[in-house]
Formats: sequence, structure tokens, C-alpha cells
Amino acid sequence: MREQHLRPSPISATVDFEADGVQHGVLRLPYSRDDSAWGSVMIPIAVVKNGAGPTALLTGGNHGDEYEGPIALFDLARSLDPAEVRGRVIIVPAMNYPAFQEGTRTSPIDRGNMNRSFPGRPDGTVTEKIADYFHRVLLPLADIVLDFHSGGRTLDFLPFCAAHILEDKLQEAKAFELVEAFGAPYSMKMLEIDAVGMYDTAAEEMGKIFITTELGGGGTATARSAGIAKRGTRNVLRRAGIIGGEVACFGTQWLDMPSEDCFAFAEDAGLVEFLVDLGDAVSKGSVIALIYPIGRTGAEPIEIRARMHGLLVARHFPGLIKAGDCCAVVGVGI
Amino acid sequence: MREQHLRPSPISATVDFEADGVQHGVLRLPYSRDDSAWGSVMIPIAVVKNGAGPTALLTGGNHGDEYEGPIALFDLARSLDPAEVRGRVIIVPAMNYPAFQEGTRTSPIDRGNMNRSFPGRPDGTVTEKIADYFHRVLLPLADIVLDFHSGGRTLDFLPFCAAHILEDKLQEAKAFELVEAFGAPYSMKMLEIDAVGMYDTAAEEMGKIFITTELGGGGTATARSAGIAKRGTRNVLRRAGIIGGEVACFGTQWLDMPSEDCFAFAEDAGLVEFLVDLGDAVSKGSVIALIYPIGRTGAEPIEIRARMHGLLVARHFPGLIKAGDCCAVVGVGI
Amino acid sequence: MREQHLRPSPISATVDFEADGVQHGVLRLPYSRDDSAWGSVMIPIAVVKNGAGPTALLTGGNHGDEYEGPIALFDLARSLDPAEVRGRVIIVPAMNYPAFQEGTRTSPIDRGNMNRSFPGRPDGTVTEKIADYFHRVLLPLADIVLDFHSGGRTLDFLPFCAAHILEDKLQEAKAFELVEAFGAPYSMKMLEIDAVGMYDTAAEEMGKIFITTELGGGGTATARSAGIAKRGTRNVLRRAGIIGGEVACFGTQWLDMPSEDCFAFAEDAGLVEFLVDLGDAVSKGSVIALIYPIGRTGAEPIEIRARMHGLLVARHFPGLIKAGDCCAVVGVGI
Amino acid sequence: MREQHLRPSPISATVDFEADGVQHGVLRLPYSRDDSAWGSVMIPIAVVKNGAGPTALLTGGNHGDEYEGPIALFDLARSLDPAEVRGRVIIVPAMNYPAFQEGTRTSPIDRGNMNRSFPGRPDGTVTEKIADYFHRVLLPLADIVLDFHSGGRTLDFLPFCAAHILEDKLQEAKAFELVEAFGAPYSMKMLEIDAVGMYDTAAEEMGKIFITTELGGGGTATARSAGIAKRGTRNVLRRAGIIGGEVACFGTQWLDMPSEDCFAFAEDAGLVEFLVDLGDAVSKGSVIALIYPIGRTGAEPIEIRARMHGLLVARHFPGLIKAGDCCAVVGVGI
Amino acid sequence: MREQHLRPSPISATVDFEADGVQHGVLRLPYSRDDSAWGSVMIPIAVVKNGAGPTALLTGGNHGDEYEGPIALFDLARSLDPAEVRGRVIIVPAMNYPAFQEGTRTSPIDRGNMNRSFPGRPDGTVTEKIADYFHRVLLPLADIVLDFHSGGRTLDFLPFCAAHILEDKLQEAKAFELVEAFGAPYSMKMLEIDAVGMYDTAAEEMGKIFITTELGGGGTATARSAGIAKRGTRNVLRRAGIIGGEVACFGTQWLDMPSEDCFAFAEDAGLVEFLVDLGDAVSKGSVIALIYPIGRTGAEPIEIRARMHGLLVARHFPGLIKAGDCCAVVGVGI
Amino acid sequence: MREQHLRPSPISATVDFEADGVQHGVLRLPYSRDDSAWGSVMIPIAVVKNGAGPTALLTGGNHGDEYEGPIALFDLARSLDPAEVRGRVIIVPAMNYPAFQEGTRTSPIDRGNMNRSFPGRPDGTVTEKIADYFHRVLLPLADIVLDFHSGGRTLDFLPFCAAHILEDKLQEAKAFELVEAFGAPYSMKMLEIDAVGMYDTAAEEMGKIFITTELGGGGTATARSAGIAKRGTRNVLRRAGIIGGEVACFGTQWLDMPSEDCFAFAEDAGLVEFLVDLGDAVSKGSVIALIYPIGRTGAEPIEIRARMHGLLVARHFPGLIKAGDCCAVVGVGI
Repeated sequence: MREQHLRPSPISATVDFEADGVQHGVLRLPYSRDDSAWGSVMIPIAVVKNGAGPTALLTGGNHGDEYEGPIALFDLARSLDPAEVRGRVIIVPAMNYPAFQEGTRTSPIDRGNMNRSFPGRPDGTVTEKIADYFHRVLLPLADIVLDFHSGGRTLDFLPFCAAHILEDKLQEAKAFELVEAFGAPYSMKMLEIDAVGMYDTAAEEMGKIFITTELGGGGTATARSAGIAKRGTRNVLRRAGIIGGEVACFGTQWLDMPSEDCFAFAEDAGLVEFLVDLGDAVSKGSVIALIYPIGRTGAEPIEIRARMHGLLVARHFPGLIKAGDCCAVVGVGI
Repeated sequence: MREQHLRPSPISATVDFEADGVQHGVLRLPYSRDDSAWGSVMIPIAVVKNGAGPTALLTGGNHGDEYEGPIALFDLARSLDPAEVRGRVIIVPAMNYPAFQEGTRTSPIDRGNMNRSFPGRPDGTVTEKIADYFHRVLLPLADIVLDFHSGGRTLDFLPFCAAHILEDKLQEAKAFELVEAFGAPYSMKMLEIDAVGMYDTAAEEMGKIFITTELGGGGTATARSAGIAKRGTRNVLRRAGIIGGEVACFGTQWLDMPSEDCFAFAEDAGLVEFLVDLGDAVSKGSVIALIYPIGRTGAEPIEIRARMHGLLVARHFPGLIKAGDCCAVVGVGI
Repeated sequence: MREQHLRPSPISATVDFEADGVQHGVLRLPYSRDDSAWGSVMIPIAVVKNGAGPTALLTGGNHGDEYEGPIALFDLARSLDPAEVRGRVIIVPAMNYPAFQEGTRTSPIDRGNMNRSFPGRPDGTVTEKIADYFHRVLLPLADIVLDFHSGGRTLDFLPFCAAHILEDKLQEAKAFELVEAFGAPYSMKMLEIDAVGMYDTAAEEMGKIFITTELGGGGTATARSAGIAKRGTRNVLRRAGIIGGEVACFGTQWLDMPSEDCFAFAEDAGLVEFLVDLGDAVSKGSVIALIYPIGRTGAEPIEIRARMHGLLVARHFPGLIKAGDCCAVVGVGI
Repeated sequence: MREQHLRPSPISATVDFEADGVQHGVLRLPYSRDDSAWGSVMIPIAVVKNGAGPTALLTGGNHGDEYEGPIALFDLARSLDPAEVRGRVIIVPAMNYPAFQEGTRTSPIDRGNMNRSFPGRPDGTVTEKIADYFHRVLLPLADIVLDFHSGGRTLDFLPFCAAHILEDKLQEAKAFELVEAFGAPYSMKMLEIDAVGMYDTAAEEMGKIFITTELGGGGTATARSAGIAKRGTRNVLRRAGIIGGEVACFGTQWLDMPSEDCFAFAEDAGLVEFLVDLGDAVSKGSVIALIYPIGRTGAEPIEIRARMHGLLVARHFPGLIKAGDCCAVVGVGI
Repeated sequence: MREQHLRPSPISATVDFEADGVQHGVLRLPYSRDDSAWGSVMIPIAVVKNGAGPTALLTGGNHGDEYEGPIALFDLARSLDPAEVRGRVIIVPAMNYPAFQEGTRTSPIDRGNMNRSFPGRPDGTVTEKIADYFHRVLLPLADIVLDFHSGGRTLDFLPFCAAHILEDKLQEAKAFELVEAFGAPYSMKMLEIDAVGMYDTAAEEMGKIFITTELGGGGTATARSAGIAKRGTRNVLRRAGIIGGEVACFGTQWLDMPSEDCFAFAEDAGLVEFLVDLGDAVSKGSVIALIYPIGRTGAEPIEIRARMHGLLVARHFPGLIKAGDCCAVVGVGI
Repeated sequence: MREQHLRPSPISATVDFEADGVQHGVLRLPYSRDDSAWGSVMIPIAVVKNGAGPTALLTGGNHGDEYEGPIALFDLARSLDPAEVRGRVIIVPAMNYPAFQEGTRTSPIDRGNMNRSFPGRPDGTVTEKIADYFHRVLLPLADIVLDFHSGGRTLDFLPFCAAHILEDKLQEAKAFELVEAFGAPYSMKMLEIDAVGMYDTAAEEMGKIFITTELGGGGTATARSAGIAKRGTRNVLRRAGIIGGEVACFGTQWLDMPSEDCFAFAEDAGLVEFLVDLGDAVSKGSVIALIYPIGRTGAEPIEIRARMHGLLVARHFPGLIKAGDCCAVVGVGI
């Protein structure tokens, strides 16, 4: 097996994954650099355990500018009572902690995109070392995995929870059951085309039940979007039997993104004016947004048109757009 | 008079402010620098004029990361027909054009905050030279001035139009009449404590009728917030008699920010979780937001509490907050 | 074969390489980053095709600060009439488009030197992904390849067209025939010592007829040097039978760079004064340039001497030189 | 007088301006900064003096990326024999030494443009302190002043020597006599519109005979352009009677830049193709250059046209141009 | 008076300077910037007061990379019991807090050197605003002022306490009495030549008893140097009668720096080897340090020689030195 | 063997390793980059050889901010007389020359840590290319290797010389004999846990006798620490029989670092106050340092405690510390 030939991870944990009770600690990753020859990256981690039972691995900050996950998980870590747990909950509110500290999608140390860095390498970049630790140490401990995402500073999403369409239909069914339990306003069945390097894929290939989310974006969180994350987390733990109580059910709208026609890219840079907002219905050929060239007044803006009927599920967030940016994503209800 | 002693502005306009019809041009400001010894800053400007009548000066991009104004003004510049105008409309969609190009609040050239740079200087920084041109050339041409603002990348506001409480009550009344006409969901009467360097003050001291807005924030615009800006602009021009048609009226809620108790500042850095959203009611002493220290799980978050009854009119936007940042602003209905 | 094991290129083209007529499109390369989570690099491409016949692949901007190629190719792309073509012309004016946008030799994204990145990798850096696309998609379509170079911001060259001395003498002869047809003032037979990672080598190893140029430098182009590039391009297409007409012939001077003695490196930093200009004759031992230490007046400058007879074919361009920089290159007529 | 109220310059010279012979020293300007609490800027200076006679102040590196002046002056400083001098020659090869070290137009310390910083301030920025020292210490010592310029990294010029049209016609005549003696291929009579902050103006207002040059550009020097500078310097010293020998005369073409129509600015960014080179004749309305938008092939380039008959005396140098950059300058022979 | 014409300071304190007891608070300075439109700089301050008595103003972090002062003052602020105080102690451990946070001599916001920014300006840079607040608010409250300095990252000093030679000999005597009480291993009588902009001068001109220190350097503190600062602070408060107890006396060696000959500057950059250490005796003409050019082995190093007899009281700290840096300072015992 | 499959190193030496006498030259490594298309890194090297005998390879600047080694080696290179040598001494004062020029631990070109880059790659980064040259060219020439280290800018050490505990006890014994001869105040027997990428390991695996040092730190050197390095170097050459004379013996204290308990890491950022200095005795549980949070006065500092009895052998150097930094290292005498 590949793992046998690898040197051990340089990361050490200050928590004991086998001990009952609540532990708050760090994953310490030695990182020698100009401003600290013997420095380290310290990634907060909490473990709440009580006897036998399944293990849930809960992660936020896979991308450092997405906040619903970290809010829900810092909240959970300080409030989850081991007495109410059966099994184990491992909480890492900010996987790519250097990126999270900086408020950026990728790591300021190596520009690593955590979700394109799996399975990682013990002798690679800082981001690859973290990925490797999740791959070889944390994922094997887990039964279910919930990884939080949002749109980050440059995208905004309708709030949804999601799982992938998988070859193993039993594994897939268990995941969609957790998505349903999460109870976001929208839920998505995703068919991943290019899954290379993703945490999702790494978990799924080990047979773990993996679910994820997109809960807003713009590099912020609202009371509403953070509330969805907090409720959803406890719902998932309830459905998994790790904590007690009823799943709080609000109904969800299932969505699909059936083809490449869902995406509209900008071919020109400029000032973007959206003519519809997230959740609004669009019809094929209708104008979703205008892009104004900014160097002169009086020029006609470029039109970004929908290539299919549906509703606006995601959009470019900043007021300016560059050539090549994804401007809008259309989804369909199912 | 002060102006007599100043050298002329180095800025030259390619438009003729006295000519009828539509003109799209630039304000050219020579700017010698390492990457262009004989370079210039080019600020787009449009003039739409038809015979005698009042002059409206419409400006966006006073701060470079606020987008409702630029959208409404690029749209107006390409669509306003001189035949429908009586008088003159001068449109500058991005006053601090270098900041607007970069998507930042202040100028990337000199870090100048345009709204703290008035009256400017013809031999100062690039930002001060632009302020001086507005002060000595454009403002004197105007009867009414509409300057668009939003929260920018780091703040988010309930959408309102506003004018200042002034010593000249006639001037004040005319301004509030335009605010009413603008027709934003909310309207504000502002008492400016520290008005040094503001464009607002420069205009008001010349006796101009000056109104402004805060229409959202986060470094983006939505279809809804851009729509408010576009409708409001035409409403103001209608009320001023520059274009015809009825003011489109939707009703507005007047707000006040009566004291320093409106503001809540963060004394600690961290991850911010808001417990209420913009427009939600808050009561004195209630918790508006929590700030989690990010280095460890398990620590109690700091509470940010309301110091008066009211509704949340503005908030810090990014997911992380620093010590000294304004976290929340409470306003009261009137 | 190596290629069979590689994942597909992430780059997609908006042009159809098999369609007749003129198409202007882009190569879209997804590039997720802090300022655009779902962003892309967009590389302009044109295809002009008319029925059966050979394919020429014409490229500029392999290094981003070399301009004769991009000028000739943007000009050709807008002016080449499919009716005058027999076969296909694929035009990429700026291979390393991110570098070209920035005006730098290497990519601002990953500091990749395109001409040291072949054969590239589909899962590598942005520069490696572009190289891989050329290697696995575009080069296989081509019969002849013309890749434009100049000295860039830090070198200046006598204008020449060149091809490599190859083991396959038939392939070599065809290349030198195209060099002759190009008709630059000078022509060069190059023996590449260290060809690792070069586009040239990648093309030649596939058996393509590959020619290249050095047409000036300094990070600019003149009317004269751009004219050489424009004329040369059409001459090559004529000789290849892709467009009609006579090769415009002006005569060329063949040059050789026979040994390491052609090169003179600076061992000290300073202000450089050349005593001869490009094309001037130099004799072995004569002083080509002086390097003044800049911290003090009165010190004797270091002398850079020619190590062989010949003429000055290339020189360091900027006024200051650093230790280790190539100061001068001497060539000999053949 | 203004000067009486100013504190003394913080700059101290290690040379004695009144001593006969050759001295090589520095102007030391204390400059406290993060990487050197008690650091200094050290500006090389040479003084060559022999008894009574006029004083020439010779300066290069007013802009840090212009090289003919520094080359001629480092050469002169090491080769001028006091025995051949009658009077005094003060040589500062690099006025804005921090900019010269970096190879940039302006100072990397404070982005100061030396030629817009006069009369300077003893308690201002580093650049202003240097200007103040020249204004209050060096200029008063001089009878004639020769200040070298070229186009720098972003402009390229036909080589000319120049002086200003002045109100004092005797002073003007003496200056033009020195320009004639300098003997550059071209000579220019300049009418300065905006002379605020210039070294030229500071010198002229003190009654000094001031001449300047533009001798090439692009951030380099050639053997030819450096030769013009070296010959011209000695010619001027000869004509001033400071050194002996005949003025070496090659004839010069006098030029004029009669109006704003000489200048053509770019209103769009792109790749620039010049259709004429420096010194070529242009006719009113003819196309001097094309600007290609770089994001797509197939688009028509923007044309930059001459607004008067004449010859091309200066051009934008880099291959890319930005909106607002001066693209071309046309002059007329007189 | 100058102050009457100035607008009020924008800084507000969260402590009440007139209240008895211990208060820990901040000076809040509004600072609008790209990453926080309504942000602030927050400078920690403590006030310990008990009834009537003199006021001591204790400051560290005037330069942000000097640590003995901040250590002594953070320690004092948490340990000083109001019950042991008679009068008032105002403690600001880090005057230039933005510089202190960054560990740099000057402010990362505006590169302001606090000790060259007095009297400051309420509408100036952030550093000038802080200086103005000290000048107009804090200094007027004080009777005695102790301002901590060390060498910072680029200098290293023998540990001494110091006061200035003043025209008012009574004021001077009181200051030297406090220096004696401070009890550092060395004590210095300083004659300030260029006192423009210094905090020292601002305090002395108001008639305050002002003392300062240099207690080490290199951007660090040792147990020994921090101990000197902690003992010295309490000694000064004892001598001033603000706290009780005996001045802990260890004896001190008085030093003088009588002329410019104390200082030795580097005229060349390189690797510096000191041949004597701090406190070692040097004789006039002896070699203090060697500077090796680093580009080649085998070159002779430059010698830095003492220009007077004495002992080494300060030296350049980093291993590399630049032209213009102060290399060594020699003092004499008195 | 691995080496057979690698392309040759791109580095060329200007010295002949087989020639008798003294040679001062460079290792030239071609490095194409934006500011020099045909540039190079030039690493100074000296070879002193006299007939047959062992070869010593002496290196400094493995980390660019450590100065005792470069001082001792620049000194040795200019003073070692071939007549006193039997065998060969190869001197590279700054292995990671780009880092040494910049005064940083890692290379400014690629952020490469030289001591984690072995065995290097001929087609890798600049740092990897240097490592490869040492691995395949220089190390094979050597019998004994002395590689200098110190703490650099962020650590400070008691001065010691060291060698590793090895499986080959004969090799180990020879190394400890050289450590003893070096004669630093302290000597260390090191058990390397994670030796991947180290120069040490590369040398030891070839059977070379390898010793190293830690001689101070803070990014500087003192007369005392440089003296230890200079004496130690000659002592080692004497013991190896390469130069004559007696080993100058001062006695040394042997130390051990027996377990992970030697190290104390900071879990919080802040201002660090050490309560003991290097060489002071500490007892298990005693407080070594305090870390003050800097945002507020009055908070209790965090205590860093010793986890074993011993003496302080290393400490964090800068005044501020970050979470994850190594704060203190305790060693024990043996």
C-alpha cells in the first residue's frame, strides 16, 4: 500500500483521540521560515467522546474565506456536552488554518488550495502536509464526514447541503439521508467531473459517508446562514445517532445542475450589474447580468445570458469581474 | 479668496460643459511615474445637456469598492436622451477612478480617501488633485449634487438615502425633499460631527443641495440594490425638474442615529457571528454578535451588546474582525 | 506511451480546429485563486482554415516581454483571408498570456518560464498546463512551427531568424529553407547544448519543421523590427505553400556562434557603458564594455573584453548590470 | 528671505568645495529606517578645481533610469585632470541616487520625482532634502549647470540638447550658445508651460546658465548615445572656458515643439505597433501607431494619428501601453 | 497659542485620568482604510492613581522594535497596587503601537518615526495623530517623563539611562538626579544637536523632567536587560516620591559622547566582523571592525577605526552592513 | 546508481579543484528571470591546495542569516597560505548565497531552506541545484566537512560544536574527535530524529567525517563568537593534519539534549520576557519566560516552564513571539 512507504506525518496532536470527555488542543506542524527558524503552524482541534459509537469528523475552513462552518464548529466545540454524546465528534473548525487566519481561499504560505491537495504529502508544502494528516490519520478514524463550504469572497450561493452521486449506491443513499437531515433550504445531488485532489473524493474512496455544503458567500456570514449551519450540524449528529433528540425538519428544495450549460463565464472584464438575484427564476436566453467596460461611459454593456431555464443558484460576488470568471450558475429544481 | 492664489488644476476635460447633446469623455490628469514617465489618470465623464435649466452633478465611486452608484451612472450615461433633459446632467461614475479600477476604498496610488481629501490641492497627491478639480471646477457648475455611497468591502448597510442637518434650514429642506423623492426603503437625517475633508461639506458650504446614500455593501451590488439606485437617480432628476415624469413613489422609513451609543466597536480580534441581521430589532443590552478567538476551541466568545433600542442599520461585513473595527450600528425609526 | 497515462488537459478551446473559415476564440484554463474562486486564464487563439493542406502553428509571447511576434500575429489574425489560404494557420499571439499581460518574461502566477516548461503537466502549474496543451493538442496538429522571440526587457539582439542543427538532416534542411525564406537581416544556425524543457525541442522531437527568431529586444518593438516580423511570417507561409505569392527576398547574412567564447559575463555589478553597438565588428581582446562601480566616483571601471573576433550580436540591455548577467555575445559571419 | 528661516540641511559633504585638485567623496544624508536606525543615503560627488574661474555643476540621474548622463559623468570624474581645468567642475553623476541604484525614475524611498521636488525642504522627504541641498548649497556655487536627461524606461527620444526660452534674453542667449556647443544631433528651444518644482526653473531663477538634454531612452544607453553625452560635456566645458581645446563641432538640427498638437495620448490600453520610427517624417493625419486590444484576436486596432506635419521626436517605449500614456511626440525643424 | 487653532484630537481614551484606582483601557484612534472602513488603532494604556501627588508618564515602544520598556511597563501595569501610590502613574507600554505590533522601528501604516513626529498634527498621519495626543493631552498631565529606548533591530547599546544637557540648569539637575536613581550600569549626559521632532524636546520645552534610556538592542531583550528596566522604573518612582521604599542602588558608570569623532560610519556594504565587543576599551586609530565585500573571497576587508580613545558603547547589530550605516560609537568615561 | 541517470549540474566552477596554490573564484549557476533573461547566481568559492593530503570542505551560510561561519571563512580564504597546507581546503563561505545576500534564512528566489533540500536536483529550484552540486561534485571531493550554523535572526544559542550519533561508530568517533579539537565552549552529541533533506545526512551517508556548530544567533556575530569560529576552524584543520601547529585547547563542556522535554513551545502570541539567560541553570517546573498579550495592559502573562532540570541552551530571539514558535531549549551537562 502507498501509505506504508511514506514517512510519518510531521504533525503531532495535543489531544488523545481515544480519551473520553472534551479536549481542546492543536495539531502542531513544524514550519521553519525566515521569521521563525523553529516555528510551527498550530491548527485548533477539539475531540468530544463518550464511549463506543460512530465517529463524526466535522470540518470548516477548507477554504479560508468561508465562515458558516467555522462559526458552527467553534460554537459546537464549546457547547457540546460529552454526556449527550454516544461515540465521538472530532471538530476542526479551520482545516487550512493559515488561510483562515488571513481570510483567504488559499494558504498565504504556499497558495495551496486545500481541496485540490489530497491525498497530500508528508514532505510537501504546508497545505499538502495538512492534507496528508487528514488522509492518513483523521479520515480513517471517521464514519461520517461533514465538510463546510460557502462561496468565499468571490462567489455567493443559495444555501444548500450536498452529496455526490456515487458508484456505491448504498454509500450514496446514506449520504443523501444525511443531506436530508441537515435540512438546508436547498439540497443538491452533485456529479463531480474533475474530482482530482478533493477531500470529498479522498473520503468517499475510503467508504466514508461524506456530505458538504454551500451556505452563502461573499466572505461573510449572516445570522440566517450561520443558523442554518448550526442547526444542520446538530441534525446530522442526531440522524447519525451520535447525539439524541429529533432532527429539526424545515423541508428542503432539491436541486440539480444537469450540464455545462448551467455555467456562464465572462469573456470581458468590467463592472457587473445583475438583473436577477439568487433564487430568482431565469428562462433560457434571458439576460442575467450586464458587464460595463469601465474606461468610458456610453459604451454598450456585454450581456450574460442564461443557457437554460431554472433559477440563479450562484453568482460572482465582487462588483468588478475579470475575463474568465464564472459570472452565474443556473440550477433546476427536482 | 483662497482659489485666486492657487495654480490652475492640472486636469483637463475632453468634454465641453456648455455644449448641448451627449458627450462621453475623460478628465485627464497627468501622472508621471516609474512605469509611465508621461502617463495620465483618465476619469470617465459624461455630460448630457439641453438648453437652460438646473445642473445636477451625479457621482459614484467616491470610495472605489461601492458599486450601486457606478452601476446606476454607467446605465444613465448610456441611456439618458438629451431630448428628455431640461438643463444639464454631469455624470462621473467613479470619482476616485484609480480606487475604482482596483476595487479598493482608497486610491492604490496614494492611499487617499477621497471623502477626506477636500478641498484638495492642485499640487498635491493624485487624490487631492481630483478633489481640487471637483471643488474648483465641477461643484461650482452644479445646483444639486447626488453622491452615491454603500458600505464597501468591509461594511453592510440597510439601504438609505440621506442628507445633513444644516444651519441653513431652507437648504436643508430642499435636500430632504430630494431624499424623499429618491425613494430608498430607508431615509436618514444625519448630523455630521467631524466633517473635515468631506465632499459633502465642500458642496454644502457652496450652498449646493447635496444628498447621498448608503445602499448596501460588502463590495458588491444586487439586482435589488442596483434597482434602488437606478430608480432613485431618475426620481431625483424628476423632482429637480431636469427630466419629466412622475416621481416613482414606494414609501420610505425615516431613521435617526441619535448618539454615540449607536456604535459598537470590537475590542478583540476574532471570528464574528452575528445573532441578528440588518433591519432586525434589537433591545438595549441584547447581544448583537459574538467574537470567537480563533487560536483555540473551547474559549468563550466576547459579546457585542446593543447600547440602545432600535434596529440594526449597519454591520461589519467580513467574517473576521480586528480590534478597533466598528462591529454594529443601531438606528431608530422616526 | 507517456501521454496515455495522463489525465486530459483542463484547457478547452472555443474554436473548432477542423472548421473552414476564420475563427477568433480563446483557450480557457480554469484557475481557482483568492480573487476568483471559479476564475480562468483566457488565451486568445485564431484559426484560419481552407480545405486540405499543411498546418502552420504560429506563436508569440512564449516570453511575455517580447513584442515583434505578438504584433505580427495580431496583425495576421485580423487580416488573413481564408480565401488566400490552402490548409490551416493556427495563431496564438501570446502563449504565456499571463506573462504577456504583465509585460514580464515569466508568468506572474507561478514565475514559469514557458520555454523551460515542456512537455508540461495537466495537473501542474498554470504555465505547465499551457505547455502540456501545446504538447499534446496543438503541436500534433502542425506541420511547421514558427515561434517568435526577441531579447525581452533585459537583452537586445541583431534581428535574426534561426533553426537548430539536428540529427535528422532532412528535417534540418527543411527548417533552414524556411529560415532563408523568412528573410531576416541575419540568419543563425544554432547548436543547442541544453535543450531540456524547450518548446523547440518538443516540436523537433515530433518531427515538426521548427523555426524561431530573435528580432530585437529591450521590451519594445520598432516599426523596423515589427516589419521584419510581419514580412517574415508571410514569407514562411508562402514558402510552405499555405498562402500564394512570391517570397519577398532581401538577402540575409548567415551567422554562427561557434563556442562558449562567444559569451562575456559580468562578474561585478555596476553601470555599464558599451563601447560598440550591435552589428559593430570586435576583435579578440578588444574592450566591448566598461562597468563602473556606482558607489564612488574615481574608481576604475571593469573592462569586458571580446574573447574572439566577430561582430556584436547581442548585449545586456538595461543601464545597470548585476554580477552573473550576460553582458555581450559575439557572433561570426559564415 | 525664505532661506533664512529654514533649518540647515541635514546633508554633509565629505569634499571641500574650495580646495584645489581632485576630490572624490559623498554627500551623506542621515536616513533612519527600519533596516538601519542610524543609516544614511550616500550620494557620490566629485570636485575638480584649479584656481579662479567659473564653476560648472554637472548632474545626471535626476531621474534614476536615464543613463547617458551618469556614464559621461562617471567617465569625466575619473579622467578630468585638474591641470587642464581653470575654475571648478562639480560632478554629481546621480542626483537621485536611491532611484539610480534601483534603476527607477522616482525614489524607491518616497516615490519622489526629483524634477518636481524643487526647491525642496530640509525637513521633508529624502528626495526633498536632496533638492533643498542642491537649491541652497550647490546651485549658488555654480555659473553654468548641465543636467542630463533621457527618456528613461518608458520613453525614447531623438538625441537633443536644449535650453528654455526665458524672459531674460541675455541669459537665454548664453544658454543657447552652450546648447550649440554641446553639439548633439538635434537641439531644442523649449517653452516650459508648467515649470513648478523643476530643477531647471530653480537654477534659472537664480540667474544660472542652465542647459539640459534628452539623449535616448528605454532605460539603457548605446555606445552612440553615450558618446554624444561624453563629447557634449567636454564641449560645454570648453565653450565655458573651464577646459581648453576646440569645441568639436558636428552640426546640429534645431527643433521646435510649437503646440499641444505635438502630443498624442493613448485612450486605450493595448499592444502598440509603431508604423514610423524616431526621426521619420510624419504628415498631419497619418497613422503613427496602432494599439491592439490584447484579449481577443480579430478586433480592429485603435489608430494614433499625427495632428501636425513634422518628424517623430519621441515615443512610448514599452511594447504595452496604458490609457493615458503619451504615445508619440511630433516636432518640427526650424 | 498654536494649540488653540487646532481641531481637537480624534483620539479618545477609555480611561478617566482623574479617577483613583487602577484602570486598564485604550486610546482609540479612528483609522479608515481598505480593510476596515470604520476601523481604529487601539493603543493600550493604564492609569494607577491614588490621591494627590506628582504624575509620572511612563512610555515604551516609541520605536516598535525596542523591548525593555514594554516588558517593564506591561509588568508594572499588572503589578502596581494603587495603595502603594501617592499621585498618579500613566503607563503606555507601546506609544507607536502599530510599529510595536509589527516589531518595526517605524509605523507600518505611514512609516512614521514617532521620535521625529512631534509636536504632531490632529489631521496628519496616524503617527502624527498619536504624537499630537501625547503633546496636547498626556504631556501636560505629567511632572516627570520616562521614555524607554534600546537599539532596536539594527543597533546594540551598552545599557544606560540618560538625560539632556539643558539651558535650565534646575530642570537639568532634577533630570540627572532621576538618571542616577534609575541605576543602570551606565549613565549618559547627552547634548542633542538636532532635536527637531523629538518627544524628548517636546517634554523638556514644557518644563517636564524627562529621562530616557538605551538598554540593549538587536530587537530582543534578555533577562538581564529587562531586569535593569524593571528595577530602574521602580527606582525612579521611588525617587519621585510616587511609590515608597529605598532606591535600589548598584552604582553606575557615567559616560560622555563628546564630539562627532565618536561615530564611525561604513562607506561600503559588506559582511561586518567586530574585533571588540560592547564595553571593550578602544584606542584612537585601532581597528574596531572589518567589512568584507561578499561577492568574492580573497579581497582585503575595509577597516573601521576608532577616531578617539574610549570604550565601545554602541554598534551596528546585523551581520551585514550597508554604505552609510553607523558601524560603531565610542564613548568616554567621566 | 541514482546519479547516473541525472543530467549534469548546470553549475560551472571558475576554479580548478586539482590545481595547487590559492584560487578565488565562483560557482556560476545560470538563472533566467524577469530582470535578467541570461542571468546567473554567482557563489564565491576558494580552493587552497598543496600536494597530496586530505581534503576539508568548509561551509558557511547554509542558512543566510548566520554569520560566524562566513566571517571565519572569508577570513581564512584571504589568509591561508598554501605553503602551510598539506592537502586541500575548499571554502564556500555562503552556500545559500542568495539567502546570504539578503540576510534571510531561506532563499529569496524560491524560499528554499538549504538544509532541507538535499540531495537536490539539477533541474529543480535554484536552492535544489546548489544542493545537487554539493551532493554530486563537492562532497565526493571531501574527507572532512565542517558546516557552520548559528541561531539566525530568530534563535540564540550557547556556542557549541556538534556531531551526530551514528551507526558507524568509527565514523562517529572521528567526528567527535574533531568536535573536541574545534574547542567551542560547549560541545554537543546530537541524535537527529528527522534527518530528511539535511546536508549533514548527505555527507554522513557518503562516509564523510561531518561536524557542525551553533555559535550564537540573533542575525549577528560578536567579536567573541567570531573568535570561536576562527580558532575552531584552524583547530580542526590542525587535528586533520592539513595545517601544522598545536590545537589551541581551552576545554569544552559536553552537553546532551536527551528528549522532547528539552523543548518548550509557545501556544500564544505576545511579548516575551525571559527570566533566565543562556547558560543559566533551570529546574524542572521553573518559569523560563512570560508571554504578555499585547492588546491590553493588566492581563496575566502566560508562563513557559522548564520540563526538566538543566541549563538554557537556546531561546527565541525576537521580542515578540508567535503561537507555535519554539520559546526555549533546555540541555543537560554530561
